[in-house]
Amino acid sequence: MKLASLKQGRDGRLVVVSSDLAWYADAGHIVPTLQAALDDWDQHEGPLRNLATDLDHEVIPRERFHERDAAAPLPRAYQWADGSAYVNHVALVRQARGAEMPETFWHDPLMYQGGSDGFLGPRDPIPLADERWGCDLEAEVVVVTGDVPQGVSRDEALASIRLIGLTNDVSLRNLIPGELAKGFGFFQSKPASAFSPVFVTPDALGDWWRDGKLHRKVMVDLNGQPFGRAEAGEDMTFDFGTLIAHAAKTRALGAGTIIGSGTVSNRDATGGPGKPIAQGGVGYSCLAEVRTVETILNGKPETPFLKAGDTVRIWAEDDRHHPIFGVIEQTVGG
Amino acid sequence: MKLASLKQGRDGRLVVVSSDLAWYADAGHIVPTLQAALDDWDQHEGPLRNLATDLDHEVIPRERFHERDAAAPLPRAYQWADGSAYVNHVALVRQARGAEMPETFWHDPLMYQGGSDGFLGPRDPIPLADERWGCDLEAEVVVVTGDVPQGVSRDEALASIRLIGLTNDVSLRNLIPGELAKGFGFFQSKPASAFSPVFVTPDALGDWWRDGKLHRKVMVDLNGQPFGRAEAGEDMTFDFGTLIAHAAKTRALGAGTIIGSGTVSNRDATGGPGKPIAQGGVGYSCLAEVRTVETILNGKPETPFLKAGDTVRIWAEDDRHHPIFGVIEQTVGG
Repeated sequence: MKLASLKQGRDGRLVVVSSDLAWYADAGHIVPTLQAALDDWDQHEGPLRNLATDLDHEVIPRERFHERDAAAPLPRAYQWADGSAYVNHVALVRQARGAEMPETFWHDPLMYQGGSDGFLGPRDPIPLADERWGCDLEAEVVVVTGDVPQGVSRDEALASIRLIGLTNDVSLRNLIPGELAKGFGFFQSKPASAFSPVFVTPDALGDWWRDGKLHRKVMVDLNGQPFGRAEAGEDMTFDFGTLIAHAAKTRALGAGTIIGSGTVSNRDATGGPGKPIAQGGVGYSCLAEVRTVETILNGKPETPFLKAGDTVRIWAEDDRHHPIFGVIEQTVGG
Repeated sequence: MKLASLKQGRDGRLVVVSSDLAWYADAGHIVPTLQAALDDWDQHEGPLRNLATDLDHEVIPRERFHERDAAAPLPRAYQWADGSAYVNHVALVRQARGAEMPETFWHDPLMYQGGSDGFLGPRDPIPLADERWGCDLEAEVVVVTGDVPQGVSRDEALASIRLIGLTNDVSLRNLIPGELAKGFGFFQSKPASAFSPVFVTPDALGDWWRDGKLHRKVMVDLNGQPFGRAEAGEDMTFDFGTLIAHAAKTRALGAGTIIGSGTVSNRDATGGPGKPIAQGGVGYSCLAEVRTVETILNGKPETPFLKAGDTVRIWAEDDRHHPIFGVIEQTVGG
């Protein structure tokens, strides 16, 4: 089942989207918003799935689904907690600035509490008041949970996953060092994130969803050129079950909690820094990583951060190259 | 006007509470929840105020208001961002562990993104799975904003404040050093916070609300003994307008954003560490501060963190010693 929220009010209008993303059926007679569906999932899941089946069988009225009409599936949420599960990425960033990475980073997940009061839709421009802030994209996988009790195991956490999608976790890199030095985590350096047009249930992914990981490439184009093709199922040190259990160690998580993987990143086959796609590598899922590799190789970064007019595309494909979650496609500074 | 949410479902049932906190009138015919009221404040504020006036004039049906029936006014919220505006507190904590405090801390607010997916009601027990986590109370002032555009001035930020209340920002002190060392801020060390039974509009506070600060003592009792009587209007380095403007520097804030002051803390008249109430001081608003003072004076902390069965009371009074926001009264480990 694939779910989207068409732009309407603060919380959107819930629709069920066909498997091929071409059509939608309004779900308002079942439940008005995705948050409301997640609040009472046991009650609403069955009727929503029936609607999705009817839509795919073309036995009910349907409308054309335009991704540009979609808000983030949860236009606002009660919780957005973002991990940093591709530890390879963290190790590279540390290497570039000559900082040692604690060995515990391989065992104890990094996670920050993100702002969730307003997300960007998949086609919304990235607002950027000042290019000197060093605006970066971050292509990530996300899951949405039901209610998660405090102290759950990894397996229980995996069973709480309701939906899977993608995000562009926008970061203001030049504000991060100052904020981290203060010790209170990210705040100003993490403006609103954008999400894929649809979120899908785990079963809809078949074998692409296993071991708490999405086994598809996360595709990133920058200004129309291939920039990242990293395999989300590889080099993910902490699967989503582990990330959720980490988040729930000391407190319960409310239904509709969004948990992020952190920037998807693959180790290079040679063990060295990852190569650009043009040089046969899998590229990068954020600018910070290519700048890090440039710093390691050449002593300084060359790729600039995002500026007004730059375009970012983030998606994942099925075997016929059709987007699974739709496409995040944003222009900076609109 | 004073507003509360009686326990019901995930978001409570909005009621208007009389000025003396003795009575309530259901507001469901105007708007069902406080979040919905804040989402369309211009539309709902007038009718809610009329209801409050009618309630105080005893011209409508009314029910007894029992604080034990209240959830947090926002039982869950889209944003909880907590400052650390009493820099004196930060300086003391740093002094105790021999760490220098950067001079910028006096000019650039500290703020962390807190979890907002589920808050505790004013009489709810503080869940604590492991006493070794070092559970602490933190008595703070909070404000709730309307929509705040990115880049607002302090004055615009002040005008966005809809409601004022108190919180017990529960902290797990022994988990904080490890989390801060990882650089991603607090996560596991900040379980659910509790809030005062009612939130009130700024006008209802009269002269007690000025310059973006609450000019009343925040009263804290621990196990029935006076523990803190700090004046919230004093030594607050950053007023709420400054805190909100800081939060909105790089992104808009959604309606219903809760901004916290951080632990209320007064400098001692002598310039030294603050004294306990029994020794003529104003006491403390968290255990970490008294432990810090003990460390400075005696080389090590003596006051233990919270354990099962401990009780915490947090409130503020009018001139006749009646609680303004009701009373947070929690028992640990229930």
